[in-house]
Amino acid sequence: MKKLINDPADVVREELQGIEAAHPDLVKVAYDPFYIARADAPVKGKVALVSGGGSGHEPMHGGFVGMGMLDAACPGEVFTSPTPDQMEAATKAVDGGSGVVHIVKNYTGDVMNFEMAAELCRAEGAEVESVVVDDDVAVQDSLYTAGRRGVGATVLMEKIAGAAAEQKRPLKEVADICRDVNSNARSMGMALTSCTVPAAGSPTFELGDDEIEMGVGIHGEPGRDRMKMKTASEIVDMMATAIVDDAPFSNGDQVLAFVNGMGGTPLIELYVVYNELNKFLAGRGITIARNLIGSYITSLEMAGCSITLLKMNDDFTRLWDAPVKTAGLRWGV
Amino acid sequence: MKKLINDPADVVREELQGIEAAHPDLVKVAYDPFYIARADAPVKGKVALVSGGGSGHEPMHGGFVGMGMLDAACPGEVFTSPTPDQMEAATKAVDGGSGVVHIVKNYTGDVMNFEMAAELCRAEGAEVESVVVDDDVAVQDSLYTAGRRGVGATVLMEKIAGAAAEQKRPLKEVADICRDVNSNARSMGMALTSCTVPAAGSPTFELGDDEIEMGVGIHGEPGRDRMKMKTASEIVDMMATAIVDDAPFSNGDQVLAFVNGMGGTPLIELYVVYNELNKFLAGRGITIARNLIGSYITSLEMAGCSITLLKMNDDFTRLWDAPVKTAGLRWGV
Repeated sequence: MKKLINDPADVVREELQGIEAAHPDLVKVAYDPFYIARADAPVKGKVALVSGGGSGHEPMHGGFVGMGMLDAACPGEVFTSPTPDQMEAATKAVDGGSGVVHIVKNYTGDVMNFEMAAELCRAEGAEVESVVVDDDVAVQDSLYTAGRRGVGATVLMEKIAGAAAEQKRPLKEVADICRDVNSNARSMGMALTSCTVPAAGSPTFELGDDEIEMGVGIHGEPGRDRMKMKTASEIVDMMATAIVDDAPFSNGDQVLAFVNGMGGTPLIELYVVYNELNKFLAGRGITIARNLIGSYITSLEMAGCSITLLKMNDDFTRLWDAPVKTAGLRWGV
Repeated sequence: MKKLINDPADVVREELQGIEAAHPDLVKVAYDPFYIARADAPVKGKVALVSGGGSGHEPMHGGFVGMGMLDAACPGEVFTSPTPDQMEAATKAVDGGSGVVHIVKNYTGDVMNFEMAAELCRAEGAEVESVVVDDDVAVQDSLYTAGRRGVGATVLMEKIAGAAAEQKRPLKEVADICRDVNSNARSMGMALTSCTVPAAGSPTFELGDDEIEMGVGIHGEPGRDRMKMKTASEIVDMMATAIVDDAPFSNGDQVLAFVNGMGGTPLIELYVVYNELNKFLAGRGITIARNLIGSYITSLEMAGCSITLLKMNDDFTRLWDAPVKTAGLRWGV
């Protein structure tokens, strides 16, 4: 294992120290337990958004804390759910009196721990709404999940709901926007290589020199098929067909197309993928109204990509375009 | 070789098609010969900045075309200089009547071809200033270079000089700002793995499972030393010592610290590196006034990082903070 780290046991703490040193204008970092909060939290009168999950998916979630997106993120150890005490502490730290939305990716540990944290917070009088993200069409159940996994839609949800919260919309409405994003988004991923969890020291799975894993999860969970290497055109055709045929997309729709790198894939390849996706969608009568291209929800150094499509409406578009100021996504400010 | 591409011969063209489809608000793409220009070029009364170089370093340079940064970028084939006709066509397309600065990384092919293009443009009456970037302290001459290589300072120069051009500063001043950035910046890189040029199909160089290349170039050129794997702390200490001891940094200085991923290194590791760099510089009495952390000047899927330090002054700081709107760097707008 070759990684730019010190002791594998210290990776998350040292990453947090790096984030704290780099972005004091955006965030403050708590170490006992770990969470990252907006520098100006709690923001009075604003619904707060809290997310979290295993580390190793950066910039998600810590890189999305800031104005117009998340109020707090709870990083677990690499590919391991954060604990309820992290979520509880983060929720209390950012609750500005207008309620808190928990954005929870659908993995068994995350769901269980966020539920426990929500109960603890509610017992002390906080208003907490929980939203589960499950946009991955690749498999029904998997290694860490009952039901579909939560992947790329999480990034879009955090941006869109974060803008709605910034506009001081009420708790129920912000939570409903999250649910709307989830039901209008679908994703699928694929891997060219595995990744190595620092504490494990060896690759999560093995792939042959001419093999790819189609439908891979963000922790290297098995997908739909292991197959021989294919061209970008063939790969996009398989992923986009699975997404578009699932729902809710149809001829005439406007979508946000998110081409995401898994961490070890260079940008030049993501633009080749985007070009193929653009052609594929044109052939289905679907127009890309907005796009996001880059490595935003990653699996350490895994090579590969995922595609997320979100069916847009006017409100989603305005919220997507609204200013955001985080380490990972920034525009308009 | 596993890459998200179709025919290796089409990678650059298809990447450009992806960029054109994704960012029509920012850029327009020419295909005969290849260049990427600002959507609103030529901008009357503004000095134009033109850069370029081999592809495979994305987002540099095409991802830095837009308001507040480059007016045009000329992409060569992967790790291959663009040709003089590309540079000439791009220069003419963006010349708004106030002159053009060519930002040229110090590689033999790039320097020769940009010189030829500048001569051709001048012969037709254009005012062209050329600036060569050579900030890499790792080696004196190398595989593709006489003198030092141009690396991370290029990104900082394009941002800072781009802001100066946006303020309508005159040609000579914009070119001098480029030269000032170059003389106040130093860089060094290292690799954990090689990368594979699509047309070659096999790794550019071989590294053992426990080896790193210290001082590597952005095309995988040999560095100072091949050595056994080390901790992030030891690696940063070696790189930062080489940079700080070279010049022009001293106790009490304010710097911009740029921690760059080579393409295949995840963000979590770059923050661990940043944390080490921050501690190292504090020990030398050097304050990080601004930072940039991410994969901005890459070597395809190479794993590794580079560090660039730029000694800041008030003008650099204001120009760095000025609004920029490109696919690769964006803030303030």
